[in-house]
Amino acid sequence: MTSSGTTSHPAGGRPEPSAAWELLVTAAGAPARGRGRALQEALRDAVRSGRLTAGTRLPSSRELATDLGVSRGLVTEAYEQLTAEGYLRSDRGSGTWVGETARAATGRTVRDPAPRAPGVTGASGVTGTPGAPGVAGVAGASGVAGVQVDFRPGTPDLALFPRAAWAAAQRSVLSTLPHRALGYPDPRGLPELRSALAAMLARRRGVVADPERLVVCSGVAQASTLLGFVLRARGMRTVGIEDPGSPEHGRLFASTDMDVRWLPVDEEGLLPGPLAASGVRVVVTTPSHQFPTGIAYSAGRRAALLDWARTVDGYVLEDDYDGDFRYDRAPVGALQGLDPERVVYTGSVSKSLAPGLRLGWMLVPRELHAEVVERKRTMDLGNPALDQALLAEFVTRGAYDRHLRRCRRAYRERRDVLVAALTGAFPGTTVSGIAAGLHIIARVEPRHGPTARFVERAAAAGVALRPLEEFGTSRQADGAVRLVLGHAHLTPSAIARGVRLLADACGRHGEG
Amino acid sequence: MTSSGTTSHPAGGRPEPSAAWELLVTAAGAPARGRGRALQEALRDAVRSGRLTAGTRLPSSRELATDLGVSRGLVTEAYEQLTAEGYLRSDRGSGTWVGETARAATGRTVRDPAPRAPGVTGASGVTGTPGAPGVAGVAGASGVAGVQVDFRPGTPDLALFPRAAWAAAQRSVLSTLPHRALGYPDPRGLPELRSALAAMLARRRGVVADPERLVVCSGVAQASTLLGFVLRARGMRTVGIEDPGSPEHGRLFASTDMDVRWLPVDEEGLLPGPLAASGVRVVVTTPSHQFPTGIAYSAGRRAALLDWARTVDGYVLEDDYDGDFRYDRAPVGALQGLDPERVVYTGSVSKSLAPGLRLGWMLVPRELHAEVVERKRTMDLGNPALDQALLAEFVTRGAYDRHLRRCRRAYRERRDVLVAALTGAFPGTTVSGIAAGLHIIARVEPRHGPTARFVERAAAAGVALRPLEEFGTSRQADGAVRLVLGHAHLTPSAIARGVRLLADACGRHGEG
Repeated sequence: MTSSGTTSHPAGGRPEPSAAWELLVTAAGAPARGRGRALQEALRDAVRSGRLTAGTRLPSSRELATDLGVSRGLVTEAYEQLTAEGYLRSDRGSGTWVGETARAATGRTVRDPAPRAPGVTGASGVTGTPGAPGVAGVAGASGVAGVQVDFRPGTPDLALFPRAAWAAAQRSVLSTLPHRALGYPDPRGLPELRSALAAMLARRRGVVADPERLVVCSGVAQASTLLGFVLRARGMRTVGIEDPGSPEHGRLFASTDMDVRWLPVDEEGLLPGPLAASGVRVVVTTPSHQFPTGIAYSAGRRAALLDWARTVDGYVLEDDYDGDFRYDRAPVGALQGLDPERVVYTGSVSKSLAPGLRLGWMLVPRELHAEVVERKRTMDLGNPALDQALLAEFVTRGAYDRHLRRCRRAYRERRDVLVAALTGAFPGTTVSGIAAGLHIIARVEPRHGPTARFVERAAAAGVALRPLEEFGTSRQADGAVRLVLGHAHLTPSAIARGVRLLADACGRHGEG
Repeated sequence: MTSSGTTSHPAGGRPEPSAAWELLVTAAGAPARGRGRALQEALRDAVRSGRLTAGTRLPSSRELATDLGVSRGLVTEAYEQLTAEGYLRSDRGSGTWVGETARAATGRTVRDPAPRAPGVTGASGVTGTPGAPGVAGVAGASGVAGVQVDFRPGTPDLALFPRAAWAAAQRSVLSTLPHRALGYPDPRGLPELRSALAAMLARRRGVVADPERLVVCSGVAQASTLLGFVLRARGMRTVGIEDPGSPEHGRLFASTDMDVRWLPVDEEGLLPGPLAASGVRVVVTTPSHQFPTGIAYSAGRRAALLDWARTVDGYVLEDDYDGDFRYDRAPVGALQGLDPERVVYTGSVSKSLAPGLRLGWMLVPRELHAEVVERKRTMDLGNPALDQALLAEFVTRGAYDRHLRRCRRAYRERRDVLVAALTGAFPGTTVSGIAAGLHIIARVEPRHGPTARFVERAAAAGVALRPLEEFGTSRQADGAVRLVLGHAHLTPSAIARGVRLLADACGRHGEG
C-alpha cells in the first residue's frame, strides 16, 4: 500500500487514544440521554477547529467505546452521522478517518451594521448619519458616547407607543384570524389592511386611495427601492432629490443603480426651472411638509410639479412622512390627490407609531402597479401577515386616530417648549418649519458660529445636533448657525435641559 | 380683459348655483362638527371626478354660504384649504376657480397579484405556480375552483400554528421590550434573536452559527434576492439551480438580473461533471432533503460540491427549508457546517411555523457579509422589531422545539396515511423521499398515465396535484405518473378522502 494510491486515504497506524480523544471525554460524561448528540458535536467541533486534521484515522468504534466508557452503538451512530454529513470518511476494511471537506470559518465579521452605498452625486459635505424623512432613523443617544440630550431629528417618542391598545389588537387578531391568513401572503398586502389604509388615507390625507392600487410595504425606504428598481428597468437612470432634502433617499435609489441629482428647493417648494433643466424623469418630494425646511409647497409649485411630470412622462414620489402632525390648521392634502397617475404616494407608521414596526404603504399609478407588485414579491413575498392584520384592526377600531391625537398634543407642547427655551437662551434666534412635524429649523445668530464649532461644543457638552448643511449642498453666506432640531422624541424637561446645556456650552461664546 | 392674457384664468361669469353646487348640499347637511371637512371632501371629489371642470368659477364664499345655509367661514376655509392643495386657484379681485392641476385616476388595476418575472432559462415545461422549497407557497385550495383536497406541496399545517404559545410570547415581549427597541432596527437583526437563532441552529442543524454572521431576513425568498444582488454586483451573471428543483429560486435570482442554469441531480445530489462544466460560480442547493426528490446528498457529493466552490471561488446557497422534519433518524447536519466561508446557509419559519410570519435567517460568509447587510438595509432597513423579539422569546423559552416535536409527530402520521392509502388504491405505486419533509414523491404505474391526463382527471374530481415534471426539465421515458404530494398540511382524513377521490377518478382507467 503506497501513499500515491491512497491520497485521500490515511496511511497512519492506530492513533493514541489518550491524546487525541480526550476532547471527547466531556461528551461521554454528558447525561445518558444527550450523550450521543454530545459526542457528535464534540467530534464535529474537533474536525472543524482543526484539532483533528484531515487524514487522521479514528479508533474503531469498539476501541473508542471502551476508552470513553460508552456503548459501542453510540460511537457507531456518531461515526455514521458524521460520515453522512461529510466530516468523516469510512471504507469497509480501512476504518474511519477525518475527511478533507470541512473548513473552519475565517476571521470575525466587521461590526459596522450599515456601510454606505456609493452613488450619491453632488452630495458634497454630507457626513454622519442623516435623518431622512420617511426613510431613515437617527442613531439613538446610545450611538454616540456621552450624549445626554439628542436633538437629531427622525424618530417619534417611542415611549408613547400605545402598548396597551396594541396588545388588545394583537389578542383580537390572534384569536380571530383564519388559519389560511397565516399562509404565504398576497404580495400587495392583506386585503383587510389595504381597505383600512385606503379609507384612512382618503380621510386623513385627501389621497385617491383605491385599495387595489395600494401596496403594503416595509416603509418608505422599501417604497423608494421598489420604485427605483421599477423605473430603472424602464430606462430611467437618474432621480432628483430635494436640496436641502434627504441624502438617504439618494442612497436608496443609488442601490437600484440610479444616479442622484440634487435639485434646489426654496420657500415655496422645488424650483421648476432647475427641475425642467435637470433631465430627470422622477423626483422625490415632501410637499406637505418639506424635509428638512418644514415649508409646505405652494399651490403654484404643486401645479408646476405635476405639469412637469406630465410633460416629461415622469413620476413624483411623494414621501408623506409626517403629514399627520400639523399643529396650526388642517393638514395639507397630499399631492397625490391631484394626480394619482403621476404621483407615487408613500407613507408609513414610522413617525406615527414606531419605526421598528416596519410597516408602510404606497399608492401606485396604474402604469407601474404590476411591476411594483412583482418587485415586492421577489424582495420578500409580502409583509408579515399578523402585523398587517394587527394594523388593520388597530386602524379600524379607531385606535390609530386616537393615538395620533395624543401624539399631536404632546409634540405641539414639546415644540412650544423648544422654541421658547431656544429663543430665550439665544436671543435673536429665529425658528421656521414649526407649523407641523417632529422637528423645527432654528437659525442662531452668526456670533455663536461657525456651525462646526457650535456643533462640536454642543457635543462636548453632551448635546447631539445636526446642522442643516448636512441635508444638502447649499450654504448660506450669512454665517448663522442653522440647525434641524427634533423635539418630538424628547420630553419637555429633556428639551429644557438640552437647551440649558447648549446655552452653557455655546451661548457665552457668542456673548463675549 | 382678454382670454389671451389670462390663459390660466377663468373668463366665465357667475355660475348657476342650483346646478353646479347641488353636490355640496349633502356636505352642508352633515353634522355641524364634520361639516367643514365634508364640504372640502365634496369639493375635492367634484374637481377630481371632472364634475367641476378646470376654469369653472366658484361662487363667492358669501353666495355659496347662503345657498348652502352654512357659515361663510366654513366656505372660506374650504376654499383656502383646497387652494393650498392645488385643486382651486384664487386671485384677489377675481375670486376662486377650479384649477387645471387635478387629474383623475385612470382605469382599474389588473388584479393579478403576482405576475411572473422573466429570465428563467432552460425551464421548458414549467407551468403553474410551482411550490418551491423555502421560497414560495402554493395557492391554497381556495385558489382553484372546486378543489376539495389539495396535495400540492409547500405549506405546513397552518391549523397547528401554536396560537396560545405565540400569544404568551407576544404578551411577554410587549410588556418587557425597552422603548428603544421600537426604533429603527439593526439591519442585521435584533441581537437577541441572532443569538437565539445561532444557538438553535448550531444545536439542531449543526451549522457554524456566529451571531455576528447571522442576518435576519424575511425568508428564503429574500435571502435569495439579497445574495443575487450581491453576487451580481460582483460580476456573477448566472446561477445554477437543481434539476429537478425549484423554478422559483430561478425567478428570484432572475429578478436580480442573473441568468439561470438548470443542473442535473441524481439520487446522490448534484452531478459534479455538469456543475463544473456549467461555468456558474453560485448554485442553489437543498442538500439535507433535496427538493423535490427528497434525497439527502451523499457525503461524496457534499465534498464534491465544496471542492467545486473552492476551485471556482464560488458559493453554495444551502436552502435548508425543512431540515427539521426528519422521521427515520437524526437530521442530516447542514452543509454549511463543513465550510462556512463557501456556503450561504438559509432557512425560515415558513415550514416550521407559518409562511405568513415572513421571518427567516441567513448565515453569510465573511467575504459577503457587509454587502448582504447593506442590501438588506436598502431593501427594508431590517425586519420588524416586535416580530423579531417575539421569535427570540419563543425560541428561548423552548416553545419552538416543542412545536417542532408536535408537528413532526403529526406529519409522520400523515405521511404514513398517505403512503398506505396510495399504495392500497394504486397497486404497484412506489414512493420515495419519505424519510423527511412535508411531501413525498409517488411513482404511479404507467397504465394510469399519461401524467397530464391523470392530473386532469384528478382536478375534475376536486383533487389538486402537481407532477414532478413541473419542477425541472428532465422527463423519464417509462411513462409512469410521477407526483410531488404534500401531506403535512392535510389531516389524515383529508388525505384518505383525497386518495379515494383519486382512485375513483383515475384508478379505474388503469384497471380497464
